Amino acid sequence: MPDTQPVFILVNPQMGENIGAAARAMLNFGLTALRIVNPRDGWPNQAAIDNATGAFDDMDEVRVFSSLSEAIADLNYLFAVTARARDIAKPVFTPAGAAEEFRKHIKSGFVFGPERTGLENDDVALCHGVLTIPTNPSFPVLNLAQSVSLMAYEFFKLSDATSPRTEPLDVAKAEKFDSMFLRLQAELEEQEFFKTDALKPTMLRNIRAMLMRGAWSDQEIRTFQGIISALKKPH
Amino acid sequence: MPDTQPVFILVNPQMGENIGAAARAMLNFGLTALRIVNPRDGWPNQAAIDNATGAFDDMDEVRVFSSLSEAIADLNYLFAVTARARDIAKPVFTPAGAAEEFRKHIKSGFVFGPERTGLENDDVALCHGVLTIPTNPSFPVLNLAQSVSLMAYEFFKLSDATSPRTEPLDVAKAEKFDSMFLRLQAELEEQEFFKTDALKPTMLRNIRAMLMRGAWSDQEIRTFQGIISALKKPH
Repeated sequence: MPDTQPVFILVNPQMGENIGAAARAMLNFGLTALRIVNPRDGWPNQAAIDNATGAFDDMDEVRVFSSLSEAIADLNYLFAVTARARDIAKPVFTPAGAAEEFRKHIKSGFVFGPERTGLENDDVALCHGVLTIPTNPSFPVLNLAQSVSLMAYEFFKLSDATSPRTEPLDVAKAEKFDSMFLRLQAELEEQEFFKTDALKPTMLRNIRAMLMRGAWSDQEIRTFQGIISALKKPH
Repeated sequence: MPDTQPVFILVNPQMGENIGAAARAMLNFGLTALRIVNPRDGWPNQAAIDNATGAFDDMDEVRVFSSLSEAIADLNYLFAVTARARDIAKPVFTPAGAAEEFRKHIKSGFVFGPERTGLENDDVALCHGVLTIPTNPSFPVLNLAQSVSLMAYEFFKLSDATSPRTEPLDVAKAEKFDSMFLRLQAELEEQEFFKTDALKPTMLRNIRAMLMRGAWSDQEIRTFQGIISALKKPH
């Protein structure tokens, strides 16, 4: 059984701002386990705290280590996050693929390298798999917080049941739409809107399709009834 | 037929740094059409250029407008990017849902609000749908560049064919693995590794499973042959 969330490990991060932005992005997607290996400017770091906009308050205490092997010692499956193809023969995952693979292991870690240089080969060697976020090949380098954010987002999606498209309102029963439409038709007939009887059935079908596409609610149908009444008032 | 990419529109962005980070994230995922409505610090903006790490060089020229309605005039379908539920009755999309909906329209735009306050209701009113990125409900506010990045990433995924898991090497033919395994077995028999004949078949099956799980290549099987030879050398 996998642990409910992965651990994110930042190796030799340079800028506190980036550590803070990474923490914020993790918590945005419900992840709270952050470890840091040798942060350049020490720890705790005021720039990190400022840039996290309060995220550290709701996360587990950040654990700081002096080597990657210590930082990962209790983890079962490790992903090295790197954009560069390596000469090391390991499976390469997309974010969605890694989120899926994560489910198979007890406790997984994601290892992110420092901002400019990325992970060293010796760090990648300590991991079971590689995570490479597919990007524009002519402008591939994501910033650290962006990489963290995208991976955390894929985890959140694993358990998120939000429908890809949610309709705003309950659609009114057909009989309500119909009585409104019959009234509109009667008013238009009275105004001689339909030039010929031959075209009338087609025109009515087209108007019906156009108005039905909004999938109006009871309230919206009442609003449109009001619009019809207002328009036909004599000036 | 949809245009090959959406237009991203930043409304009243405050910090040049965020505009730059947004541009960088767009180009990371191959998007090049950025419009800005009333940037607080004017345009062009040195902080934006610095933070974009060269992205503007490969993007279309940024177009600047003084109102959202001018900025979207030529677009067919608009998504308002906002975390807050509104009282306006519009369909609400996830990033993946919006990327899918985008395919149905000729030219789509994604409208992002200013950093602190987000979009105003009057801006949302100009859009056909709402895009809400699902997040941790107790820490929901994504930064601007992060929102841009996640949406751009979903677009990139639409046309990206990268396998969720790519294997690093061609697995050797079974006969190569077999001859290595038979040699290992012979060496172990010589060293009296198998205590009893009764257990031997099970032990051999377990060792075979353990070694096969790596799905070794030709070269890796040769390396393991070398390891066997090295270990059995007399000291």
